Order: sequence, then structure tokens, then C-alpha cells
Amino acid sequence: MSKSIRAFAPATVANVACGFDILGFSVEAPGDEVVITLTEGKGVSIKAIHGDEGLLPLDTSENTVSLVIQEYLNAIGKPDLGVEIELFKQMPLKSGLGSSAASSVVGVFALNKLLGEPLSQQELLPFAMKGEELACGSAHADNVAPALLGGFVLVRSYDPLDIIELPTPEKLHATIIHPHIEVKTKDARAILRKEVAMSEAVTQWGNVAGLIAGLMKSDYELIGRSLQDVIVEPVRSILIPGFDQAKKAAMENGALGCSISGSGPSIFALSTSQETAEKIGKGMQAVFDAINIESEVYISKVSQDGPKVVS
Amino acid sequence: MSKSIRAFAPATVANVACGFDILGFSVEAPGDEVVITLTEGKGVSIKAIHGDEGLLPLDTSENTVSLVIQEYLNAIGKPDLGVEIELFKQMPLKSGLGSSAASSVVGVFALNKLLGEPLSQQELLPFAMKGEELACGSAHADNVAPALLGGFVLVRSYDPLDIIELPTPEKLHATIIHPHIEVKTKDARAILRKEVAMSEAVTQWGNVAGLIAGLMKSDYELIGRSLQDVIVEPVRSILIPGFDQAKKAAMENGALGCSISGSGPSIFALSTSQETAEKIGKGMQAVFDAINIESEVYISKVSQDGPKVVS
Repeated sequence: MSKSIRAFAPATVANVACGFDILGFSVEAPGDEVVITLTEGKGVSIKAIHGDEGLLPLDTSENTVSLVIQEYLNAIGKPDLGVEIELFKQMPLKSGLGSSAASSVVGVFALNKLLGEPLSQQELLPFAMKGEELACGSAHADNVAPALLGGFVLVRSYDPLDIIELPTPEKLHATIIHPHIEVKTKDARAILRKEVAMSEAVTQWGNVAGLIAGLMKSDYELIGRSLQDVIVEPVRSILIPGFDQAKKAAMENGALGCSISGSGPSIFALSTSQETAEKIGKGMQAVFDAINIESEVYISKVSQDGPKVVS
Repeated sequence: MSKSIRAFAPATVANVACGFDILGFSVEAPGDEVVITLTEGKGVSIKAIHGDEGLLPLDTSENTVSLVIQEYLNAIGKPDLGVEIELFKQMPLKSGLGSSAASSVVGVFALNKLLGEPLSQQELLPFAMKGEELACGSAHADNVAPALLGGFVLVRSYDPLDIIELPTPEKLHATIIHPHIEVKTKDARAILRKEVAMSEAVTQWGNVAGLIAGLMKSDYELIGRSLQDVIVEPVRSILIPGFDQAKKAAMENGALGCSISGSGPSIFALSTSQETAEKIGKGMQAVFDAINIESEVYISKVSQDGPKVVS
């Protein structure tokens, strides 16, 4: 058995317009990488964290990767196994790209592979959710589940947890832009209304139903018509200067739909080709350039897979 | 060209638990039948209405079948064509089974066939919706669309109208019980809250997403887990004495799920065999028998087809 393994887990877009709190998808890039090494000693340790220097805790009880790994080790009856973690953060924190979810997934995925997969990929989810709870204060699954399982994932219910893997139409490309604005997840939650109009709720679940049907039929036009959020986006977009113009630019450049990624500030758009995805990225970036907000653009296919071993 | 045709259009279950105002399905029976005959004279006339005697208007401007047919004739440029209607009502009015939708669909479907299908089945929908508007006061499509197109149908949006035909898993059976209680559609609407809690809305669209995914995957267990309505059923079921016990009887006898059909008072349950569907029917009927409410039970596969020509 090998003593060391390198693995990757992807960034994710949660909510996906109409699917607030129930839907997410993963991309092929960016994502986080980890090197996990079995050691002679006892217990979990963090060798180094590269990227986001100083922003993530090295203390194993406060770090998501090590916390998730420790929970996993307890569950498989090897609580004292010597495990060393080296984490390569390759995407921004607090960007709405599921950075903490990628970290929560990548370590336990790698270790489970290294140990010959005592647990299935689905069975790793509750551990990764504990990492998300540590990082964000609540054990949401809408980033963690697609980061772990790949493609589009539905979180139908939390109690009991019911995770449904959805098919991902082959041509789907994502453009994600991360404007350098801070939107705190807490603020993004606090701004939401506690009550919504019945008529808007009906519109929303009509669109959710359309989106699921579109994904399952690979009907790109239906996906596009359904990517509308009448409940959360109108409120949260207030926290993102330039959102309306960036969305307009995305749509004018051929996006099927465009909305906030997770709780923001990143914005995602879906399209059906690399070329269109790049045009959308340029269009959106020009909007933020014009208002002097720095941004990065990520272009990728929507991933069919979740995390993977990197050779 | 034949001068006369007989056709059938099915009963329908709108809402389908979590899919309030956006989902419906049709069954194989019961349903309404019509005989349409081309005459030498001018204009639309009603020869007879059998069943529900005296409850439906014979005046062609107030009758749904003739109104829909006249709208259709205007649209195809034959406003004065001589058309005689004989309607056979085979299901109760105001039962929540889509009685007016079946009538709205059956006549125009039959006439369109008789004339060699100048319009496609999808194109007949706006006319049938006008019949629904006349009968119910609003042009809802969640009964009319499945009555016309068959199986499960999603009404994603009204403006613009966006109707999505969904696959219907082969084994799905419906048990529908019609207790003899009057629930006015107007009352059933008035009792609904105008606002819903965000958390309940999220639960609802998680279930809607699960139901659509379940239908498309023929995943009966997922369909069952998703057939939950946390928003409308808890309020409307108050109008149906015995509802809670009838639902309990349905679930105990093997139903995947059970909820109100349309705005009630009928109750539907889904299951995966004729035998289970019959057991469910007996279980529910015993509940209404015990509280001295008369009822009829209808057992049928969920229909793959909509209306059909009867030879």
C-alpha cells in the first residue's frame, strides 16, 4: 500500500439561481489539492497550507481538513492513525465558490482512497458536512455534496439527509467571476426575508422543476428558461455592486442563465461552449473593470466527476 | 372524411402534493366522452349532455365544450362550421378530478381529429384553457395540460406559457377517492396563506425537485419520499373531514404518497401495482364509511396518453 496520495476537489456553485439551499454543481477547475501521507507517529498533523497564507488555521481542531479526517478516522475505528496533511489552496476564500467545501472534501477523499476505500464516496458526506459546519457555522450540503459527488447534486432533504445525483448535460460550461468585494455569508443570510409571497414561491418551484427536467433531458433551452431566481437574487444582488450590469453582459454574450454563486460575491453563468463561456467572462469582467473592482474569471466545463486522485 | 367522431378525455390530478399550481397528471379512467358531428347547418350546437343532468349549461356561450370549440373554429378560420356536440359526463363535477378540464379538452380534441388535425395537440392548449377559465374563473393549466397531453405535465410558467411533458413511470397507479363533501374552489383558494415561511418554501422546492427527478429516473422510492406538501395540504385538508385518517390508511396500505387532488375534496394516492392501489382504495373508503360520508373510489394506471378516439 502506498504511503502518500495527492488529490483534487473542485469548486462548486451552490443555489444555482432557483435552487436556493437545495442545488449545487461542481466545475473541473479551480479546486483545492491535498497531499496525504501516512506517518509512523500517532494522530493527525498539518505539514503546511499553501495559498491563502495565514488565513486558515493550522491548529488541527480548527482546521476543516484535519477535523474531517479525524471524524472519519474515529468512524472507521482508527482514531490514532498517523496522518500528515499538506493542503494547496487554489481558490479564494469567502468568494462563494465553495472553498471550505473543497477543503472539507479533498482530505477525507484522499485518505479514504489511500486506505483502500473502506467507505463509499456517498458515505464520506456526513464527515465533509462537519467540516462545512466548522467553517461556516452550519452543516449545509449544497457545496459539499457536489464537491464530493460531482456534477449537479440535489439536496432534497436534511432530515433525513437525502442526496440525489443528477445527470449533467455534456455541453454545459460555467463562467464564474469573482469580484473582489467582501460579502459575509452571515450578512447574505441576514438580508433574506423570513417569509416569501406564495405567488413567488410557486414561480420558484416551477423553475426548480423546469431546471431538473432540463438537466435530465439535456434540454439546454429549458435549463436557460428555468435559471431564474425571483426570491433570493433580487435581495442578495444588492450586496454586489455591478451585479445587474454583469448579468446583462452575460446574457447578451449568450449565457443560458446567470445568477449569484452561493452567497456571493461570485457570479456564475452557464452556456453551451467554451467559446461562449469565454465571451461571457470578458463581458462580465469589463463591467467590473469599469467600476474599478478587480476580478478573476474561471472558465470550465461543469464537471461530471467530483474529486480525483492526481498523479 | 367521416362526419362524426367519438372521443375520450381523462380525469386529472392537479398539484400532486408538493407541486401546487405547477404539476398535474392524468389517469386512464374515469373521463368524459363526446360525440362530435359535422352538420349541414351553421354554427355550434349542443345536442345533449348525459350525466350531471341539469348541472351543466346547454347554452353554447356558457358551456365549456362549445365555447372551446367556437374559439378553435375562429382560430382555424372556419367560424361558421356546423358542429353538433353530444357530451357524456362520466365523472363528478366539483370533485377535484378535473371534470371541467376533461370537458374543455375532449370536444376540441375530437373536432381537431375529425378535421384532419390542422393543429397539433400542444396547440390546442390555449383553447382548452379558455374553457377552464369559463368554468373556474381562472385559466389554470394544471388540469387541462395533463388532460390534453397525458401523463405528468409541468406548467413551468404562465407568462409566457411553458408546458413540459414529463415521463410517467410505467408502474405508477393512482387511487382516487371522492368523498361526497362540497369544497368550493373559491374557498379552497381563500384559505391559503398569501405568504409562506422561507424555510417551508425551501422544503417544498426540494420535494418538487425530488419528484421531477424521481419521475424521470422511474425511482419509485424517491417519488414517494418527495410526495410531501408542507404548504397547501396542512391548510386545505382542514376542509376535508377524515383527510388525516384516510391518508394514514393509504400509507399503511402501501401508498408511495397521498395528498389532495386539485383543490379537493378528492384525495389521491400513488402506488406501484393494481393490487396495492385497490387495497389503498378499500382502506380509505373504510375511513369515510366510518364517519358516514359516501364516497367513490377510482383505480387506474397513471395514463401515458391523454385523450383518445373511441371506436
